[in-house]
Amino acid sequence: MTSQYDVLGLGNAIVDVISMVDDDLLAREKLAKGGMMLIDEARTESLYKQMGSTSIISGGSAANTIVGAASFGAKTAFIGKVKADETGKAFAHDIRAIGVEFTTKPAQDGPATARCLILVTPDGERTMNTFLGACQNLGPDDVDADLVRASAITYLEGYLWDPPAAKQAFVRASEIAHAAGRRVALTLSDQFCVDRYRAEFLDLIRSKTIDILFANQHELKSLYETSDFDSAVAALRNEDILGAVTVSEKGSLVVTRGETLAVPAYPIQKLVDTTGAGDLYAAGFLAGLSRDQDLKTCAQLGALAASEVIQHVGARPQRSLAAMASENGLGV
Amino acid sequence: MTSQYDVLGLGNAIVDVISMVDDDLLAREKLAKGGMMLIDEARTESLYKQMGSTSIISGGSAANTIVGAASFGAKTAFIGKVKADETGKAFAHDIRAIGVEFTTKPAQDGPATARCLILVTPDGERTMNTFLGACQNLGPDDVDADLVRASAITYLEGYLWDPPAAKQAFVRASEIAHAAGRRVALTLSDQFCVDRYRAEFLDLIRSKTIDILFANQHELKSLYETSDFDSAVAALRNEDILGAVTVSEKGSLVVTRGETLAVPAYPIQKLVDTTGAGDLYAAGFLAGLSRDQDLKTCAQLGALAASEVIQHVGARPQRSLAAMASENGLGV
Repeated sequence: MTSQYDVLGLGNAIVDVISMVDDDLLAREKLAKGGMMLIDEARTESLYKQMGSTSIISGGSAANTIVGAASFGAKTAFIGKVKADETGKAFAHDIRAIGVEFTTKPAQDGPATARCLILVTPDGERTMNTFLGACQNLGPDDVDADLVRASAITYLEGYLWDPPAAKQAFVRASEIAHAAGRRVALTLSDQFCVDRYRAEFLDLIRSKTIDILFANQHELKSLYETSDFDSAVAALRNEDILGAVTVSEKGSLVVTRGETLAVPAYPIQKLVDTTGAGDLYAAGFLAGLSRDQDLKTCAQLGALAASEVIQHVGARPQRSLAAMASENGLGV
Repeated sequence: MTSQYDVLGLGNAIVDVISMVDDDLLAREKLAKGGMMLIDEARTESLYKQMGSTSIISGGSAANTIVGAASFGAKTAFIGKVKADETGKAFAHDIRAIGVEFTTKPAQDGPATARCLILVTPDGERTMNTFLGACQNLGPDDVDADLVRASAITYLEGYLWDPPAAKQAFVRASEIAHAAGRRVALTLSDQFCVDRYRAEFLDLIRSKTIDILFANQHELKSLYETSDFDSAVAALRNEDILGAVTVSEKGSLVVTRGETLAVPAYPIQKLVDTTGAGDLYAAGFLAGLSRDQDLKTCAQLGALAASEVIQHVGARPQRSLAAMASENGLGV
C-alpha cells in the first residue's frame, strides 16, 4: 500500500532555551553532563536565572527528527502537545515552516508549552533540563488514526515514557501502524531515560511493538546493563530488529541479525553544540529508509545530517539537507 | 568625576526572530537587502508565516552594543521598553544575564514586546523587518537621570527617532549627560534611517548634542548625500566630533579633525550572519574608550567583537569578548 507520509513522529513538543555556560555551573548545580533531567517549574526559573544570554529554538527529539527528514525532502507529519501561548505558537510555526503536517490541538489551559533549558559547555556537549509542561496533556485521543495509517514509518521517542498519558498514545500509535502493515521505530532517547524504563523498553523490542531501534552507545550499554559496548551490540544482534547505533565521532553501526555494518561519521570543521546529533542521525536514516535506500546509504544520510547540526547552536538544520545530500552524492 | 558605569545604552528593546531564507523571498516581498524596514502587526504575521524555522535571540541595536561592552568587562546599563509578556521576559533575562543593569519598567498593556524579523540570505547579509510594539511606549520619564549622570558615556541609537516619544527621551538623556560632564555617542543605525532623519542627525552633530558618532560607509554617504565615500569622510573630518566608520571587510576608519586612522578587520573563518556587526564594533570601541585606550586599540577591539558576532546566528556574542581580547593581546 502506498503511503501519504514517509515518516510520522510522535513526541514531546518542546522549545529549547540554549545558552553557552562554563563547566562550573554544571558542578555547582550537580548536573550530569550530557544527560536529560526532568525539572519542575520552580527549578526551571532558578536554573534559567543562572544561564547567560539564550537562543530560543524549537526542539523536541522526535520533532527535530521529523524536521530533519522533511529537510531531506521526505513527506512528514508530527503529533505533539503545546499550549496556546507564545512559545507554543513558535513551535507550531517552526515545524510547519518546513512543510511538516502538524495538527495536534494546542492545550488552552494548564501548564505552559514545554521548555528545555540546554546548557552547552565549551567542549560542545549539551546538558538538558526539561520542564514537560503542556506535554503532559498528550494522550491517546491525540493520536490521529488516519495519520498513522497513512505513514510508512511511525517514529516514537523513548521520552514519551515520562508524561503518563503519552505512553498510552505511544502504544496506541504502534497498534494502529502495525494493523495497517506499517513500520514502527523507537529512539531510546537518553541513557537516564533507559535507566528509568529499561524493562519496558526491552519488552517493546521483544513483543515486536517496534521494528526499528535507534540508540547511542551509552543508551545501548544501559539497556543491556553492561559497561562493554561490544557485548551490548552482540545482545542487540540477537533481537529480531533493525538497530542503528551512533558512536559519537566514530560514526554508527547498523545492526541486524545477519550483520553489523560500521559507517563512519562525516568530518566537521568545528564542534559547536552536540544538541540534536542523534535526532538528526535518525532523520537521515529514516529519510533514506522511507525511500528504500540501502542501509549503508541510510547511515550515511544520518551521519551527514548529524554533521550539519553539531556545527551550530540548536537542533534544527540551518541548511537544506536535501542539497547537502546531493552535494555529497547521496541523493535521497 | 569617577563614574559608576562605563557605558549606558538607550535604545529600542527588541527580540530578533531570525531565519535563513533564499533570495527569492526578498524579491517576492520587495525587501531591500541589508536594510531595516518598520512593519505593522499584520505585516509581521504575514512575513513570519513565510519564514523558515527561526532562532529567537535578544537583539536591539544599542542593547547588543551594551551586552558586547559588558562581555568585554565594562560596567554597563540599559534603558529600553518591553511589555510584560514572554518575549519581554526573555529580553530582560538575556541582558541582565551578562551583568547589565536594566530597570526600565515593562509596559503592562498596549502592544507586545518589539520583534525584528531578520531574514539571513546565503551570502550572510541580513534584512530586518521591525515591529516596534512596546518600544513606542518609551518616553522621557523612562530616562533615569541618576543613571545617566553615573555613566561615563551615554550611547544612543538613531533608530530612537522612529518611535515619537523616544526622541524626547534621547534629547533628555543627552542634556543630563552633558550637564554632568559626561560624553554622548550616537550610532546612525541604518542608511534608510538616515534618509528619514538626515537634517535632524546633522543638527545633533553640529549642535554638539553628541560627541562621538558611529556609522558605516552607507550611512555616512547617506548623511552627506554623496555617492563618494572619500567625500563623506572629508565632510565628517570637518565636524568637531570623534567619528568611527566601519567599512565592512576593510575594517574601520577613526576620523577626528586632526587625522583619519585606518584599522583593518579581523580575519574570519566563515561569514554566517552579519546581524550585529556594527553594534558589536561599537561595543568594542566604547569598551576601550571607557578604559582610556588609544583610538587604534578601540577600533581593534571593535573589529574583534564584530568578527565574533558575524560567525554565528544572532547579534549577541557567544564567547567572552574579554577572553578574546586577552588572547589577541588587547587587554581592556
